[in-house]
Amino acid sequence: MPGKNIIVGQSGGPTAVINASLCGVIREGLSRKEEIGKIYGMIHGVEGFLEGRYMDLGEELSREDLEVLRVTPAAYLGSCRYKLPENTESEVYSRLFARFDELNIGYFFYIGGNDSMDTVSKLSRYGQQTGSPIRFVGIPKTIDNDLILTDHTPGFGSAAKYVAATVREIVLDSSVYQQKSVTIIELMGRHTGWLTGASVLARKYKEDNPALIYLPERTFSLEEFARDVERELARRRCVVVCVSEGIGDKEGTFICEYGERELAACLGKETEEGSWDGKEEILLDTFGHKMLTGCGKVLERFVRERFGVKVRSVELNVSQRCSGMLASLTDIREAEKAGQMGVDYALKGENGVMVAFSRKGSGASYDLDYSAVDVNEVCNQEKKVPLSWICERGNDMEEAYAEYALPLIQGTAAVPERNGIPQYLFRKQFFSENV
Amino acid sequence: MPGKNIIVGQSGGPTAVINASLCGVIREGLSRKEEIGKIYGMIHGVEGFLEGRYMDLGEELSREDLEVLRVTPAAYLGSCRYKLPENTESEVYSRLFARFDELNIGYFFYIGGNDSMDTVSKLSRYGQQTGSPIRFVGIPKTIDNDLILTDHTPGFGSAAKYVAATVREIVLDSSVYQQKSVTIIELMGRHTGWLTGASVLARKYKEDNPALIYLPERTFSLEEFARDVERELARRRCVVVCVSEGIGDKEGTFICEYGERELAACLGKETEEGSWDGKEEILLDTFGHKMLTGCGKVLERFVRERFGVKVRSVELNVSQRCSGMLASLTDIREAEKAGQMGVDYALKGENGVMVAFSRKGSGASYDLDYSAVDVNEVCNQEKKVPLSWICERGNDMEEAYAEYALPLIQGTAAVPERNGIPQYLFRKQFFSENV
Repeated sequence: MPGKNIIVGQSGGPTAVINASLCGVIREGLSRKEEIGKIYGMIHGVEGFLEGRYMDLGEELSREDLEVLRVTPAAYLGSCRYKLPENTESEVYSRLFARFDELNIGYFFYIGGNDSMDTVSKLSRYGQQTGSPIRFVGIPKTIDNDLILTDHTPGFGSAAKYVAATVREIVLDSSVYQQKSVTIIELMGRHTGWLTGASVLARKYKEDNPALIYLPERTFSLEEFARDVERELARRRCVVVCVSEGIGDKEGTFICEYGERELAACLGKETEEGSWDGKEEILLDTFGHKMLTGCGKVLERFVRERFGVKVRSVELNVSQRCSGMLASLTDIREAEKAGQMGVDYALKGENGVMVAFSRKGSGASYDLDYSAVDVNEVCNQEKKVPLSWICERGNDMEEAYAEYALPLIQGTAAVPERNGIPQYLFRKQFFSENV
Repeated sequence: MPGKNIIVGQSGGPTAVINASLCGVIREGLSRKEEIGKIYGMIHGVEGFLEGRYMDLGEELSREDLEVLRVTPAAYLGSCRYKLPENTESEVYSRLFARFDELNIGYFFYIGGNDSMDTVSKLSRYGQQTGSPIRFVGIPKTIDNDLILTDHTPGFGSAAKYVAATVREIVLDSSVYQQKSVTIIELMGRHTGWLTGASVLARKYKEDNPALIYLPERTFSLEEFARDVERELARRRCVVVCVSEGIGDKEGTFICEYGERELAACLGKETEEGSWDGKEEILLDTFGHKMLTGCGKVLERFVRERFGVKVRSVELNVSQRCSGMLASLTDIREAEKAGQMGVDYALKGENGVMVAFSRKGSGASYDLDYSAVDVNEVCNQEKKVPLSWICERGNDMEEAYAEYALPLIQGTAAVPERNGIPQYLFRKQFFSENV
């Protein structure tokens, strides 16, 4: 008689390897035939599952499909940003657990970041209160790398590799002209600078670009930035600057919210009747809407006004989290293994845990130990880049960061190509359907 | 006794394969030992060469270096945007030709686009007027694919592959949530839509995303766009739209210049005292400065106001032209061959010509014939996407475009990796030096 069934979901923002973790859960589940029955996938996470949407992954995916799924970015099952109610008396819980019972679920896996671990935490606590036998396990995933109790998070290595490689290419591109120039690259990271730090891996020698790197862990000052850029422009033709989207000043104002007043103050100009000096008509003081601009554009304008050199700003945008072609093979392997270990822990009786990594060795002898940590401790916490890994002036990374990040970006996956573009796995009905 | 020397330069914007053409010139030059002496490279094109900056490529680059150069994006020799004077009496010409004589130059190769062909044209005409024996040959290069008299241009295939593959990944990324959404992807192309058209290659089936594609060859209407988006939102959850940066309306106004008045008119809103309806504080009528925003942001705001759905705009930016990791192997091969053929034509006595491609066969039997065309006819012309390759409504591509573009994006180059990122060839002194 087969054992209980698995249900697995994906939640939060996509990454290049969230499907590798899904693949790990499915493969491990399939290999434990004595203990596990069916492997169901929630469509659009808990939100879609509440509406009764799920699929039978063991039925739907062939062995070949799983090979492709492993290297497919974004979330094959669809995702959601759904927060379970704090109040466990909410009928949401009873509805969810009734659905679990209908499907004879014994093991619940949720692949995601902070908010998803909150879901695992709440469900496992509700289950314990109500005497449910279901075991709830979180599989970590976030390009932000901000989960605590784990050395790093699946998804980060691929995003970091994308950033390092793409910044390298932009450095080459920016260096072709003999005119002085500044290029500002804005990278993802609202609260933490893990990903922006990876731009340091683009350097081929000590004095190479990117010349300046700013993380949200340190206070950003426009005056100090101006001095940094001035110094770099004096010693090289082309200056590449990498900044996290979430950098802010000592008053706690995000740089992306900076307007005319802040820039004018630093530039020593008078503001008159809401316009500035006639040179630029853009009213930056109305740039508060973060959907419409980023700190890169603000700094671009500032550098142009201050130094009069050629300036360009580049926002790397969603490709940071969804580039499967530049995914790190190390990351893919670890993400898959995290999924496998999740199943293993659940079968061993763990409940209310998250799969975590601890690092053994460094450089070529880099490897990981896996463990199960208390998901209640993980959720709603945030791991920042240690201040000792950022240089004293706050404009560069220390060697310790590179030692940490370098092993995580090693290797490239072989993505099958068809008609000149990558051949990823996707559910056609999913794309066309009109919910 | 060795023959005359070669001088080769790169000019205009970088591409993924401009160095493959340089590699072709060098390799062909090295293989013609009886006819050719040294192979010099101009540093920063004609502009740097006028200041006396050049290098001996045969000396500087090993056989192994050439292998890496072949897959390195951006411009190894540096580039310039320098227009030769119209007046051939200018001392610029006599200075340039004096330098050619000093270096015993017999063959001049310039790898670039429209403006670079203008340089080849002017130099060859000046040479003919003054009885110079130097032969001037242009090697085509531009991601814009807008040179006439050639089937396509090296650099386009790699940029098109980058666009197709990246749009595919963004389509996956955009489709993960169950909420309705619109994603607007802004692609390079101020005057022509060759590159934006390549987004159609991202589709895996007929009704797949991107749902809507707009090129500058056709007049853009905000009203028609609204109807298109409305229709697509009615039949699918996630709508991906690809637009050229250079789309404009029937009055000739670029959409990226659109302000409050234009948007308000289409949205049926009253404009009062320069502000709009209080919902958004951004004053779009001041968005005239094209360095600061693009049409993607304008359309993003429009869709949000009009449809109230989740909207994101993504600008693919410089990676379109400098991604070596996603370069098309077909493009690399053709670019290298273009360089080789340039040398061959020069040695055969051609002067004032550009290497051109004509296509034999289609699909799997795709191949090229090479020829030398009159560079005077090429320069300062612009090849647009045929209107018959754009669908009647102006919001999609016809099959003829895909048949044209698909062979050009085939194959992937093996880029050597070191420390997890691509190992490209670059001149360190070049990066650090402070001109």
